Amino acid sequence: METAQFVIPLWLDLTAVGLGGIQGALFASGFRGERRLDLLGVAIVGIVMGFGGGIIRDLLLNVPIGALQSNWYLTTAVGASLIGMLLAAPLQRLNAVIVGLDAIVIGMFGAFGTSKALALGLPPLPAIFVGVAAAVGGGILRDMLMSLPVAIMHVGSLYAVAAGAGCIVLAVLELAGVPIFIAGLVGLIVTAVIRLLAVIFDLSLPEQRMLNRRKVATETGVLPTVGR
Amino acid sequence: METAQFVIPLWLDLTAVGLGGIQGALFASGFRGERRLDLLGVAIVGIVMGFGGGIIRDLLLNVPIGALQSNWYLTTAVGASLIGMLLAAPLQRLNAVIVGLDAIVIGMFGAFGTSKALALGLPPLPAIFVGVAAAVGGGILRDMLMSLPVAIMHVGSLYAVAAGAGCIVLAVLELAGVPIFIAGLVGLIVTAVIRLLAVIFDLSLPEQRMLNRRKVATETGVLPTVGR
Amino acid sequence: METAQFVIPLWLDLTAVGLGGIQGALFASGFRGERRLDLLGVAIVGIVMGFGGGIIRDLLLNVPIGALQSNWYLTTAVGASLIGMLLAAPLQRLNAVIVGLDAIVIGMFGAFGTSKALALGLPPLPAIFVGVAAAVGGGILRDMLMSLPVAIMHVGSLYAVAAGAGCIVLAVLELAGVPIFIAGLVGLIVTAVIRLLAVIFDLSLPEQRMLNRRKVATETGVLPTVGR
Repeated sequence: METAQFVIPLWLDLTAVGLGGIQGALFASGFRGERRLDLLGVAIVGIVMGFGGGIIRDLLLNVPIGALQSNWYLTTAVGASLIGMLLAAPLQRLNAVIVGLDAIVIGMFGAFGTSKALALGLPPLPAIFVGVAAAVGGGILRDMLMSLPVAIMHVGSLYAVAAGAGCIVLAVLELAGVPIFIAGLVGLIVTAVIRLLAVIFDLSLPEQRMLNRRKVATETGVLPTVGR
Repeated sequence: METAQFVIPLWLDLTAVGLGGIQGALFASGFRGERRLDLLGVAIVGIVMGFGGGIIRDLLLNVPIGALQSNWYLTTAVGASLIGMLLAAPLQRLNAVIVGLDAIVIGMFGAFGTSKALALGLPPLPAIFVGVAAAVGGGILRDMLMSLPVAIMHVGSLYAVAAGAGCIVLAVLELAGVPIFIAGLVGLIVTAVIRLLAVIFDLSLPEQRMLNRRKVATETGVLPTVGR
Repeated sequence: METAQFVIPLWLDLTAVGLGGIQGALFASGFRGERRLDLLGVAIVGIVMGFGGGIIRDLLLNVPIGALQSNWYLTTAVGASLIGMLLAAPLQRLNAVIVGLDAIVIGMFGAFGTSKALALGLPPLPAIFVGVAAAVGGGILRDMLMSLPVAIMHVGSLYAVAAGAGCIVLAVLELAGVPIFIAGLVGLIVTAVIRLLAVIFDLSLPEQRMLNRRKVATETGVLPTVGR
């Protein structure tokens, strides 16, 4: 019953998977570590960035994993990874594309996660937690697979803060009776704008003075491996 | 039915989450790696140490994740992380606090995990496995997020052994008809005592002669990053 | 109903767990990093390689985790890890054993994953995804626990490609009406043969010229830690 009430429209879900996949493949293609990824490695990062957030969300919610209920998700993620690989060469200098896509993707996964959790009857704080976990989860999996330091632990730029703010706004609006689509859209915009402003103005939280050289490097995908 | 029989009392569960959160934040605050964590990173470690074990337990048991069913868990974990951050400065030399809290927390998560698994009808060996996974899982997630070597793989001090012994004792007692609360308490005490004795007397398993410098460092949170 | 239709025979499932456990313990015993694993660490790697693929499969499928429904799985995994530790010394030079066992194990986990997913009614592409995730998942967990670079991201030798090819063949055969046991056997053989040929003839995907020194090292378990 409850699950039947709330279904993220397939086209919207696939849009998030596709944008995530492109962003992941761009990130991985730009990776200049001690060990380069092979083509499959790039594709795996694309799939992880497209799928990861949704899988984490559905595992936490203990519901069947949406991305496995239709052939379209894997098709979209693989196709998006290929597009990302092809775009990587011409876009190599356009870091803005990576950061911009990322801001939209974390906004979408955060909005989907929080609104699906609320629709399943979770209290607001856990619903916000699920949204943030969905938003940042794909990136955490990516960093673990690529043996990179986990970005949200070290990199400032208010990555998780942006996701949290968007999910909180969404939850407050929805509990205030705002229709879910509008609440989700506002939440997405809040997340994306905070994230972009943080990158543009180099905002960050205290206690990370030593990180400056690394911050931009991570966001632009030109980061050496841990082992350097 | 079965799940209705066995409910970890909320105050007890929140106690474990809170102690885990304090311990995690103390650990992360004391972290002196190449890259310092920002305040959010410290809070994330606290939340992971408070939540991680319970989430892994409930994922393995394929039941709704307890920590997401109430607003109290996140409130407690965040509050505990803040307390841990505030205590970190005055307690900086008091490594005993970190190790002591940790011994109690792994004992509690181990006892909750094994007893919940038994209550759900799992056979004893898998129930012990779930308890151990819940006890050590939070620490594994923490190490992965912080890009540290996973402590239970390398660090002696009988970390997982202590968790395993406590869970085995609990399972044996419960199968012998001892009331769950007493069995759990005994299991918790067994785990905590073994763990504390191992640290105090520097007990460890064979094949780790080269680890001595690292062992104390990990437990006290003054460990350099992998990349050094 | 659906789940009742399809049950991997216990002896077959335990065979995969046992071979995975032996292979994992052999791999971990041969590990010569900056920090050696203790005996428990070797056993944990064995258990992870025996259990990991099945746990990932069942989490993705949102069904109760098979390895936790009977005492036999943990008994088998622990026993297999002990056998692997005992065999490690006499077999030290016999890297072929590690690679050969691994080829069979990924074939088995891939076949179990895809066929169980199809039996649960998943569409073919997600079913293939589940099979590949089950096949490579144990190794990913192992690498993360051992703080190694995740092998499938960097190491050529068509590791994930072999798993994917076997799962695709299995899915096509089963959808064509071939009995599941035969389809699974053919899928297993396809995976194992591709993987072995890739190792023997040193086949790999583009963009990894710099990896040669590492590839053999990983497969034979004589790999230094990340931090070197």
